[in-house]
Amino acid sequence: MKVQNYRQVKGITAAPGVNMRVVAGPTEKAPTFVMRVFEIQSGSATPLHTHPWEHEVFVLGGKGVLRSGGRETPLMEGDAVMVLPNEQHSFLGIGKDMLRIICVVPLVDGKMPGMPATD
Amino acid sequence: MKVQNYRQVKGITAAPGVNMRVVAGPTEKAPTFVMRVFEIQSGSATPLHTHPWEHEVFVLGGKGVLRSGGRETPLMEGDAVMVLPNEQHSFLGIGKDMLRIICVVPLVDGKMPGMPATD
Repeated sequence: MKVQNYRQVKGITAAPGVNMRVVAGPTEKAPTFVMRVFEIQSGSATPLHTHPWEHEVFVLGGKGVLRSGGRETPLMEGDAVMVLPNEQHSFLGIGKDMLRIICVVPLVDGKMPGMPATD
Repeated sequence: MKVQNYRQVKGITAAPGVNMRVVAGPTEKAPTFVMRVFEIQSGSATPLHTHPWEHEVFVLGGKGVLRSGGRETPLMEGDAVMVLPNEQHSFLGIGKDMLRIICVVPLVDGKMPGMPATD
């Protein structure tokens, strides 16, 4: 059992203008999946990419756009996003506040999968 | 790909005073794990129980207490909780606002595991 506020977890720069904090993962002995908190500055985005694992995302605050397959879907607080394996996706921050999202991914070969190159 | 605000998802009463909405799960073809949003009224709680799968929890708002093994840990917005398999736990709402949490669980035999009886 571990309780920690995400603001106390050290983050890394996952992409330009994108901070990622792993709040429940291998360090916490997570057996199956990893919970991360992303803060995406306005005008910044995660790479437009695909991979063979899923994302389950929840928007904590700010405003954003989900780009996928040529479509753009607005995102706001309280939105839940299911990104299935091999679906192209990018999360873009817009507006004055940072887009803050939870993004859960499965462990792959016992590790948290990395951010693949843009495609 | 599916985007839906959790407030538009039909909830069920998971325990007295506890509403649960499945925002990414079998209906969305989630392959590995299920994201749920719980709203726990002040004075209400999830059963004190254990099970062989983990929870990864994130506090969206309100105040609460995590009860586990005779200990009580306060919970506030932004707290992430790793509950490992077989760790006893109960989430209690306190204060004037509902405790709102995300709780992610693995699929077990391809299904979302239910809320076991109190122990």
